[in-house]
Amino acid sequence: MKIGLIIIGDELLSGNTQDCNMLYLGEKLRALGLKLGECQVIQDEIEVIKKSFTQALKENDITICSGGLGPTIDDRTKAALSEYLGVELEDSPHARKLALEHYQRRSLEWFPELNNYHMIPVGVQAYFNPKGLAPGLLLKKKDQQLLCAPGVPREFQSMVDHFFNSLLENKSNAARNYFTIRTNGIPEEQIFNKKCPTLWQTLSQFGNISSYPRMSGIDIVISDLKMTSTKMKEKLTTLPELHPIRNHVWHLGNGNIGELIIELAKQHNITISTAESCTGGLMAHLLTEVSGSSQVFFGSVVSYDNSVKKNILGVTQEGLDHFGAVSLEVAEQMATGVRNQMGTTYSVSTSGVAGPLGGSEAKPVGTVAIAIEGPSGRHSKTYQIPPIFDRDEMKKRFASRALISLFKQMKKDLSL
Amino acid sequence: MKIGLIIIGDELLSGNTQDCNMLYLGEKLRALGLKLGECQVIQDEIEVIKKSFTQALKENDITICSGGLGPTIDDRTKAALSEYLGVELEDSPHARKLALEHYQRRSLEWFPELNNYHMIPVGVQAYFNPKGLAPGLLLKKKDQQLLCAPGVPREFQSMVDHFFNSLLENKSNAARNYFTIRTNGIPEEQIFNKKCPTLWQTLSQFGNISSYPRMSGIDIVISDLKMTSTKMKEKLTTLPELHPIRNHVWHLGNGNIGELIIELAKQHNITISTAESCTGGLMAHLLTEVSGSSQVFFGSVVSYDNSVKKNILGVTQEGLDHFGAVSLEVAEQMATGVRNQMGTTYSVSTSGVAGPLGGSEAKPVGTVAIAIEGPSGRHSKTYQIPPIFDRDEMKKRFASRALISLFKQMKKDLSL
Repeated sequence: MKIGLIIIGDELLSGNTQDCNMLYLGEKLRALGLKLGECQVIQDEIEVIKKSFTQALKENDITICSGGLGPTIDDRTKAALSEYLGVELEDSPHARKLALEHYQRRSLEWFPELNNYHMIPVGVQAYFNPKGLAPGLLLKKKDQQLLCAPGVPREFQSMVDHFFNSLLENKSNAARNYFTIRTNGIPEEQIFNKKCPTLWQTLSQFGNISSYPRMSGIDIVISDLKMTSTKMKEKLTTLPELHPIRNHVWHLGNGNIGELIIELAKQHNITISTAESCTGGLMAHLLTEVSGSSQVFFGSVVSYDNSVKKNILGVTQEGLDHFGAVSLEVAEQMATGVRNQMGTTYSVSTSGVAGPLGGSEAKPVGTVAIAIEGPSGRHSKTYQIPPIFDRDEMKKRFASRALISLFKQMKKDLSL
Repeated sequence: MKIGLIIIGDELLSGNTQDCNMLYLGEKLRALGLKLGECQVIQDEIEVIKKSFTQALKENDITICSGGLGPTIDDRTKAALSEYLGVELEDSPHARKLALEHYQRRSLEWFPELNNYHMIPVGVQAYFNPKGLAPGLLLKKKDQQLLCAPGVPREFQSMVDHFFNSLLENKSNAARNYFTIRTNGIPEEQIFNKKCPTLWQTLSQFGNISSYPRMSGIDIVISDLKMTSTKMKEKLTTLPELHPIRNHVWHLGNGNIGELIIELAKQHNITISTAESCTGGLMAHLLTEVSGSSQVFFGSVVSYDNSVKKNILGVTQEGLDHFGAVSLEVAEQMATGVRNQMGTTYSVSTSGVAGPLGGSEAKPVGTVAIAIEGPSGRHSKTYQIPPIFDRDEMKKRFASRALISLFKQMKKDLSL
């Protein structure tokens, strides 16, 4: 089944808005054993939209279109669809029913004249919007379907879910599995072209191989898995071709670092706290993104100013004077301080220079001291991230590095 | 000048990776007074890439292509470009020189056989990569140019910067200005189709109008501004057509809420702290994304567990028992606690239910209590965000709402 996506919106091409609907649709389709073949991002002009409809409906069995269904002048999808079909808009009882439902769900009154949600091109169906106000549009043409959904991510996502779930209800939906080998501290070319020259080929027996540089290091992804994830993990644990980079593999399996830590902590009744200087709350944010994290994550002290390091975390003035805020000694005192204050099993701390300002010759931008305190004592290390990243990416790399260190230490202490 | 973007990569279509290069290029071009006309996202198969090159080079003066230049088997852009041109790869001294430079910058040794970075299609130039290892590719064909850059965002971004900066060096680069009217608490259709029915038309005299729903509310953006930002702001301050929604406008101008708060604080020697329950560190993260924030942002206590609210912030057991953790009383105690602990001019706190778990009839998912303490005393309010968002989006809305409240209070206290 060929599936394409058209994303309509000047705001996406002009750098005003980050698209996330392509990511969502791609992931959704992959989980259903389907594949997004291509995506076009186009301006919200009627002629452009018509041309894109023509092309996409020629090539795809299913075309999903995102955006341009709202109540303002720059919402032109409905007009483009009626021009493409050469039909008028008509007052649709079904669209009226849906719009009324959508407004009632939010305890709002619907005024048709403010948004024209009841007017639909002849021959097109209004489509239920599980999370918004504007109805979607569904065109069925022989074996082809075109679904126009609003561009607002939660509306797009819920409508697309509804559409594909109904479509596949009675069909096999053998989910395509994938499995991730997560590494850090080693570049792509060193893995595949030096240390493990036969790894790609060997892994290709198990599925399709891709390699992705992430904040956390290189991820090797095996998709369309030819076995269960459990079997794959067993196989990889002893795979000789993976042996040369064994020390760089920090996880065999999917899931982000926040989810992995929270899950492991829940399983073993472990509680966690963080003390953050350069990561500025990002470690806490990543951990609290996980639903149910409140069971095991107690909290964080973001000690951006040195006064906070001293007053709340008990970092000593001597430590700050003698070693500086970015030092193993201060990171260790921070980890001890927050663990004592919050009474958690583990704590992790970061102190570093995210830049672009604040670097020095001894401690350039990219320097980060990370400390972990837990049942097996204190573990700390200074890392040097290449100073080629901007502030935002640097913070993410610091947080990722610290959380991976915590995860590895937890597994080590649990003999996993 | 017609400009198009081709993004190559299965990982983007399969939901493995969030693209951010389109956003960057769109923003860059807009700032230069140029426009991104369209974007195609395609699979990394040679035939598909060739077809896309053919189409894009027919339509655009400049085509930027992202991805597929790395050292692994799934990097096929170079092969597709040589097939498209019908030429072989050749050993290029210029590519050798660039690769050597790229590796030396990171104090790494370059092994040509691990990555083939010295082999370039005949007639194509190797292109300097300011932040990565793989050289880019530049094809000049009559009046057309095709630049292939790596997909890794920092590499793509720095190469594109370099390319457009050289291209426009001697030309006018009159930046197209844009100006944002930022509102919250009122839906799009209420603004344009009810309260201010002539607003869109009136604003259209000043530039192109768009309306975008954001986490922080509806943004009305005027692009291709026909006057300076200062003049625009003056005009809008007294514009009668904007009057009916005056109370919903929280800022006239660009910049995100973190930048606006940090800038205002710097100007007026204000210091800030946060106490976060449901936002889990996100407020601190947003404020510390701003370079130089350490001058005015002292820190945050992320008090996810009630023990942390009591022990560090001094929230009373009575308050928790009597009103519950999600209450104005506890939010106020949190704001007072963190402000006392950190000694800042202002503090802001959040306590709420981000969901999907933890809601009750009295305090459903989406309830958030926000408190601010500052020179004019304590200000607190409970908000109810519709429970239609997932956890991630809910946290962002809570943080956004709290920071906007802080910003408004700061401006009010400063009589701005």
